[in-house]
Amino acid sequence: MAHARARPLEYGESVLLWEIGRDRTFMITLKPGEIFHTHRGQIAHDQIAGKPEGSLIHSSTGAGFWAFRPRLAERMMKVRRRTQIVYPKDAGWLALALDLRPGMRVVEMGTGSGAFTILLAQLVGPQGRVYTFDRRADFLENAMGNVAQAGLADRVVAQVLEAGEPFPVEEEGEIDAVFLDLPEPWRAIPQAHRVLAPGRPLGLIVPTAEQLKRSAQVLEEAGFGALEAVELLERRMLVRVREGVRPSELMVGFTGYLLVARKVLREPEPDESLRNENE
Amino acid sequence: MAHARARPLEYGESVLLWEIGRDRTFMITLKPGEIFHTHRGQIAHDQIAGKPEGSLIHSSTGAGFWAFRPRLAERMMKVRRRTQIVYPKDAGWLALALDLRPGMRVVEMGTGSGAFTILLAQLVGPQGRVYTFDRRADFLENAMGNVAQAGLADRVVAQVLEAGEPFPVEEEGEIDAVFLDLPEPWRAIPQAHRVLAPGRPLGLIVPTAEQLKRSAQVLEEAGFGALEAVELLERRMLVRVREGVRPSELMVGFTGYLLVARKVLREPEPDESLRNENE
Amino acid sequence: MAHARARPLEYGESVLLWEIGRDRTFMITLKPGEIFHTHRGQIAHDQIAGKPEGSLIHSSTGAGFWAFRPRLAERMMKVRRRTQIVYPKDAGWLALALDLRPGMRVVEMGTGSGAFTILLAQLVGPQGRVYTFDRRADFLENAMGNVAQAGLADRVVAQVLEAGEPFPVEEEGEIDAVFLDLPEPWRAIPQAHRVLAPGRPLGLIVPTAEQLKRSAQVLEEAGFGALEAVELLERRMLVRVREGVRPSELMVGFTGYLLVARKVLREPEPDESLRNENE
Amino acid sequence: MAHARARPLEYGESVLLWEIGRDRTFMITLKPGEIFHTHRGQIAHDQIAGKPEGSLIHSSTGAGFWAFRPRLAERMMKVRRRTQIVYPKDAGWLALALDLRPGMRVVEMGTGSGAFTILLAQLVGPQGRVYTFDRRADFLENAMGNVAQAGLADRVVAQVLEAGEPFPVEEEGEIDAVFLDLPEPWRAIPQAHRVLAPGRPLGLIVPTAEQLKRSAQVLEEAGFGALEAVELLERRMLVRVREGVRPSELMVGFTGYLLVARKVLREPEPDESLRNENE
Repeated sequence: MAHARARPLEYGESVLLWEIGRDRTFMITLKPGEIFHTHRGQIAHDQIAGKPEGSLIHSSTGAGFWAFRPRLAERMMKVRRRTQIVYPKDAGWLALALDLRPGMRVVEMGTGSGAFTILLAQLVGPQGRVYTFDRRADFLENAMGNVAQAGLADRVVAQVLEAGEPFPVEEEGEIDAVFLDLPEPWRAIPQAHRVLAPGRPLGLIVPTAEQLKRSAQVLEEAGFGALEAVELLERRMLVRVREGVRPSELMVGFTGYLLVARKVLREPEPDESLRNENE
Repeated sequence: MAHARARPLEYGESVLLWEIGRDRTFMITLKPGEIFHTHRGQIAHDQIAGKPEGSLIHSSTGAGFWAFRPRLAERMMKVRRRTQIVYPKDAGWLALALDLRPGMRVVEMGTGSGAFTILLAQLVGPQGRVYTFDRRADFLENAMGNVAQAGLADRVVAQVLEAGEPFPVEEEGEIDAVFLDLPEPWRAIPQAHRVLAPGRPLGLIVPTAEQLKRSAQVLEEAGFGALEAVELLERRMLVRVREGVRPSELMVGFTGYLLVARKVLREPEPDESLRNENE
Repeated sequence: MAHARARPLEYGESVLLWEIGRDRTFMITLKPGEIFHTHRGQIAHDQIAGKPEGSLIHSSTGAGFWAFRPRLAERMMKVRRRTQIVYPKDAGWLALALDLRPGMRVVEMGTGSGAFTILLAQLVGPQGRVYTFDRRADFLENAMGNVAQAGLADRVVAQVLEAGEPFPVEEEGEIDAVFLDLPEPWRAIPQAHRVLAPGRPLGLIVPTAEQLKRSAQVLEEAGFGALEAVELLERRMLVRVREGVRPSELMVGFTGYLLVARKVLREPEPDESLRNENE
Repeated sequence: MAHARARPLEYGESVLLWEIGRDRTFMITLKPGEIFHTHRGQIAHDQIAGKPEGSLIHSSTGAGFWAFRPRLAERMMKVRRRTQIVYPKDAGWLALALDLRPGMRVVEMGTGSGAFTILLAQLVGPQGRVYTFDRRADFLENAMGNVAQAGLADRVVAQVLEAGEPFPVEEEGEIDAVFLDLPEPWRAIPQAHRVLAPGRPLGLIVPTAEQLKRSAQVLEEAGFGALEAVELLERRMLVRVREGVRPSELMVGFTGYLLVARKVLREPEPDESLRNENE
């Protein structure tokens, strides 16, 4: 892995160009002979190929760009979009709430553009597996293109499914985490309960207070406990030597409510209670 | 991994008890014959051992608790604290900003209580490696106890170091990510630059606007680009069937400014510029 | 008024004591011979009487306090509370949304502890009038005590009323603004429409998303337009010479949703439309 | 005042047109024979004149608009701008922090476009007085045009002044409140101290953490105490019957840091201390 880091940027790879001074980014796939046209001049892909990550590239008009391999969050933001995506600020929170780690088996429903699929695939690693489902074949096709471009297709299984249908997974009752990004997530909750291992988390994102409430109700009815709901506000800080430090005026006001819960076993333990233990 | 999920809770394991109705949590290590004293009665460890995750446990007074394996974020919050810790909301953002994935080699300076060390260790997985440094041996000892309790000691190397001293790592120039949690992070930035692979990220957290500014200045001088600074606000939502949906009155107002940057190579490409390419 | 400013603090007046270094405040009414017991020693009321505003007062243990006349916002926070109050951050927004100015006639329902009544009374001035209603006589009695202590009783009329009953005001159809702080504000909205002058605003505060929605629906049905709903987050900033600038960790996460609308006349103008004008 | 409310809209008055369904607003001054061109058709001023506030007006294409007299906050947002203005969310907070009420004498430096001047003038009422100063005569001229359009010129005195020059006011030492909106507010703070009555507040707004810190330092040196610094976040809520309730995605991320302090008298009281009082 460390050795991979030292590899120069190669044809066929995704490259993130960071426009110096403006902090805007562009993602391209390196191809011999191709030209990237920016609003500040042109860059030949051949200028980039063979250079190490972090190299300074000048456009034909002299504007400076850093050439990087895209990070996970940048890939998520740069997917070819057919739908609203899960933003990195929310994705980071969900990654912890879903307790993702290498080797896990996870289920996603509402693949959309595949941004969150890419996060799941990266964090479960090559030994893990991601099952992702969407009712629309065209969304899945686009999303799997995005996943493949990120080099993560080996661990992702995609399939068309309607919300409420059983999840066709090998590890029924042993899935490590479920994520739902659906207009009516409550429809998929009972099936999510079936595939999850006891104690393991289900996360979802919804845009309105009403959906948040209904999801919470159905989660509790379906055998989930330990509910947590949050929303996150991310503020960019402007850090300028001369002008001083302050929050940016530009801000995304809202992206969604996040809800996480864990599969619980409701039948109480047989009452061989503490008193007996102490006898 | 999936099989591990089905394992019952065993003696020697950490268990998170979630108090139903109050949403408070307690972390204990299961030991035969021991009693956990809550403000709402007692729970015998023996009631828990052998049960699956997600089981409902009743205290001697009848109060209900869910028994879970702690998730990463819960472990982070429950470490034995000797210092301020990095909160999950910030940790999730940093995990994406540092682009962590299985197999990576990462460096942390300012181990503190080891909460973020645990996150790094979990996300790089058993094939990865975490080098963590702190100037205080007692902090390191406590932190490594926390790491060991999380079952992650196999991939973590801890060592006493002053900020500004060279990082003793095998993979000089090939480290995948660096995280600094120091009162004067600028002192460690030049050495961080040396160990990082080109293009790879350095992240840090600081409490004040002045530290944010000085860190940003030193990062740029030391050969970093693509700076991004943010702060995150997390709002808990109360989702109650009768009383309705609203944000919680309780809120942590501020935990720190997050700053991330990437190692860049400042010498511009030799000027075999676009014009020549097009000839 | 300017002359009043120069008056020394007198017996019978409310005085705000600001604890230097801790930024905590206490409100007392000056009485000859009385002692104020703080956690940092005692202060005799006689030390304060006769001094100008802004004087430095030392407790018996040497702790320093500034003596001020309370500002409106401080009076609001220091009322004898029987209920939740409207916080200054929300009150300031509402004062603008309700377009308060000297001489106005305004109606409040849900007097509660009278904090917002005090704001209304101060901003409409001695030529204005505040009608305030509550279903509980004991709340009104307490609130009017708070209003009297603020020296504003001359312009406030209080009366027991159930939500939904007609507002007994002299200026039916000519009231300048209405404010509702009720669990079911929709019950009072039709009567509020009756007393308001055309185009003038009604404001309300509610704690949940559901109440916000139902209020908005009933407002539109009852003949209100130009709805605006917001919530406000106030962050204290810590400004310290040595330690630097940063937001406070302490923060009130939520106080309520604010909703404002204006009485509109729905019958469209007779259709002597633009075309005719141009003939 | 109440009678004024019932007055129909007249030629020469400012009218706020609220576009129904889009919640956009336009401010015009009614003139006989004039046409207001919207992106959704035309409205003749003659359609509006003579109608009561709150009337429904249709454009030539049938689009609906409510016709209102502008509220204070709307006038502030619609001034002819030559500079950045103080936003209503901040203005409401400052109105309370400056403890404005009818009859007061207040000083403003940094008139800018006059938005905050209009707020001061409305809240001190016809018996109050606003002294406003700016170093640029052209800003003052534009601002006074905005003040006059709001019908508040009778109580406002405007004069060119450099920050640091003495404030030429009649009520030296008796001014009720001072507001500074300057790039270097610290230059005007000592003179503000001279004109203020003891105990009375000075407020200011600055865009950066560095300015906030320097302002706080100079305030304390100049004889101010009881400092409070905040920033406010305003979130619009979308309240839709079908789609549900949620915060708006559009949000202004930052408008400024607000700082308020009060003039204090630093010489301690003569030490006829508590012990003597009790003898």
